Amino acid sequence: MISVDEARARVLAGLRPVAAEIVPLAQAWSRVTAAPIAARLTQPPHDVSAMDGYAVSTAAPGPYRLVGYAPAGHPWEGVVQPGQAVRLFTGSVVPDGADAVIIQEDVTVGGEIVVTAETIRSRQHIRARGQDFAEGQVLVPAGRRLTARDVGLVAAANHPWVTVHRRPRIAILATGDEIVLPGEAIPPGGIVSSNSHALSALVRSAGGLPVLLPVAADDTDVIARAADAAAGCDLLVTTGGASVGDHDLVAKALGGRGLELDFWKIAMRPGKPLMHGHLGDLPLLGLPGNPVSALVCALLFLRPAIEVLSGLPGAAAATTRATLGSPLLANDRRTDHLRATLSDASGELIATAFPSQDSGQMRLLASADALILRAPHAPALPAGAAVDIIRLDQQGL
Amino acid sequence: MISVDEARARVLAGLRPVAAEIVPLAQAWSRVTAAPIAARLTQPPHDVSAMDGYAVSTAAPGPYRLVGYAPAGHPWEGVVQPGQAVRLFTGSVVPDGADAVIIQEDVTVGGEIVVTAETIRSRQHIRARGQDFAEGQVLVPAGRRLTARDVGLVAAANHPWVTVHRRPRIAILATGDEIVLPGEAIPPGGIVSSNSHALSALVRSAGGLPVLLPVAADDTDVIARAADAAAGCDLLVTTGGASVGDHDLVAKALGGRGLELDFWKIAMRPGKPLMHGHLGDLPLLGLPGNPVSALVCALLFLRPAIEVLSGLPGAAAATTRATLGSPLLANDRRTDHLRATLSDASGELIATAFPSQDSGQMRLLASADALILRAPHAPALPAGAAVDIIRLDQQGL
Repeated sequence: MISVDEARARVLAGLRPVAAEIVPLAQAWSRVTAAPIAARLTQPPHDVSAMDGYAVSTAAPGPYRLVGYAPAGHPWEGVVQPGQAVRLFTGSVVPDGADAVIIQEDVTVGGEIVVTAETIRSRQHIRARGQDFAEGQVLVPAGRRLTARDVGLVAAANHPWVTVHRRPRIAILATGDEIVLPGEAIPPGGIVSSNSHALSALVRSAGGLPVLLPVAADDTDVIARAADAAAGCDLLVTTGGASVGDHDLVAKALGGRGLELDFWKIAMRPGKPLMHGHLGDLPLLGLPGNPVSALVCALLFLRPAIEVLSGLPGAAAATTRATLGSPLLANDRRTDHLRATLSDASGELIATAFPSQDSGQMRLLASADALILRAPHAPALPAGAAVDIIRLDQQGL
Repeated sequence: MISVDEARARVLAGLRPVAAEIVPLAQAWSRVTAAPIAARLTQPPHDVSAMDGYAVSTAAPGPYRLVGYAPAGHPWEGVVQPGQAVRLFTGSVVPDGADAVIIQEDVTVGGEIVVTAETIRSRQHIRARGQDFAEGQVLVPAGRRLTARDVGLVAAANHPWVTVHRRPRIAILATGDEIVLPGEAIPPGGIVSSNSHALSALVRSAGGLPVLLPVAADDTDVIARAADAAAGCDLLVTTGGASVGDHDLVAKALGGRGLELDFWKIAMRPGKPLMHGHLGDLPLLGLPGNPVSALVCALLFLRPAIEVLSGLPGAAAATTRATLGSPLLANDRRTDHLRATLSDASGELIATAFPSQDSGQMRLLASADALILRAPHAPALPAGAAVDIIRLDQQGL
């Protein structure tokens, strides 16, 4: 059995970012840039007014004679002489000859005469050409997941298209004679497939494109043919058939297709039997059949794998410090991930593990706010002790 | 001018959740439930084995004679007599007569005889029928944004469809003679539209459906007709034309369409001019034209508005405590939102405001990690003082 960190490192080491595609800016949010995005113009393209007011030259004091009117988008073409003023609005181009803007609240206007009692500083209320960015300047590096703010910046820089990594295609193959799809008739001993649907949602939340393969019965030929359907995908995720029992069928089935097995056991709970390998060029992640184990393993290994395929670094799930709301027993040699609720006691984050940590309870995982991390051989801890947690609400799970 | 909190309360008070629709489970991730989801079956539907092993009766000690084989999905139909064993796997139905499972690592099997040296407790390694949930039990309440875990739980509960609020349709209308779309020719004094694209991304991140209306020139008739195109939407968001200057055209234009103005100034920075009202049944949010102001206002008002329309509570953006990395000047009477970077100093979150807080710098907003909140008249603070921040990476902005 290998550690969680070693397993993640080995899974990620076999992955490369997928190729690029171009998408319209309107569909670029949350996509990962495949190339740096440089400004196609200088912003602002001219000195512009930061306020509604009047452009003047500081070469002469007021009062000023109003000689022009320049709303945003309609620059005044003349040259402002000392003693003259041009009416401007926020974003208006500051006309030649002017070097300051007097805000409208600070003037009185009578006929064509503009009077102010304020002292005028050169450059006041003017946004200088290029203050935000200059043509050619890289605004967004490659390998960044575009935020709404980035989308605005890229738009301002005049890009109608962006080059991003295509969404990684993640094939999901549930195996098991007992598995039926939601809404179908359930035979005796049958159970409704939940893993593949939860994993599909996790893939979407991580920016991937799930490809849900038909459920494969517990038969090596059927499993092998189902896996063939993953051709053209970037990663094949299986669930079930990865236990240590007689029903360890996935490895057997795919062995006939040339599976190179890297490892298949991790010192963790829930989820010990996790299989990793390659089917030719196709990386394979074999998750346990138990839904709680499958989802915790997906959080720890599948999510960073999708990130690497997407062009991101693929870090471990972020951890936060929290305070224990109830005591914990000493841990054994496996890293544990205790399902817990979070509460906030005057700014302090309290994590309380569910009394039952049975991995058969999907309802408890769904209502958990966090996983409390327990290192191998971690000692018993009293309530009030500090622990590391993974916040599930921040992990798209 | 009214406070940020009062403005948000008034915006949200005028909103109601949109109607429901049904979506396939495969598209249900991140949607908001419009009705509680109850289990359609009991899970597990029978007592099942938690491990690979052998089902026995504790009424008699071993050794046991192997009389059956029951992989998951293929229940053994007989009754286990004392002294008999049935081979099971994780998830297999425990046959009648058996009340314990011996895990396979604890037995030796010779021919048809199963021997164990361990003491067997009744119910060991058995997951009881209904341990996860019972038929009829509510698993997901109404008004919850479905996580990947929820999707798995709803699948396990045998729902192929779920009833969710439809995505709120948010019409976005950029106004201004100077505005051109990315990739179009830019006339003198022209500027590329960034607000509408950034807002569209923010709407998507909040679970809404953006409807990008054509840019409206600074003309009351044009603006009024453009706003007519928002019919059937749940909220109209305008940008620009909301300043205090001569170019306060949106209010004027929509006044002719029966706009009932609620308020139009907020004591905040960036973004003082924010307009709120109703056009008949259509709520209106008029954001400033300045991109930084527009996006900060969108975070504070539009995002919770979309949440309420989606069937969620619509809370203020979550705040976190952080430590100042550099001193701050005293604040004036307007709530301020300082663009800042975050760093982590041995577990302590350090927030450092950019030296320039000019709202003309979209690039700085895009590279900010957080907004530092400054209450009206907040005193000057030294580096090391505690402040409240809004983490932008957790706000879909």
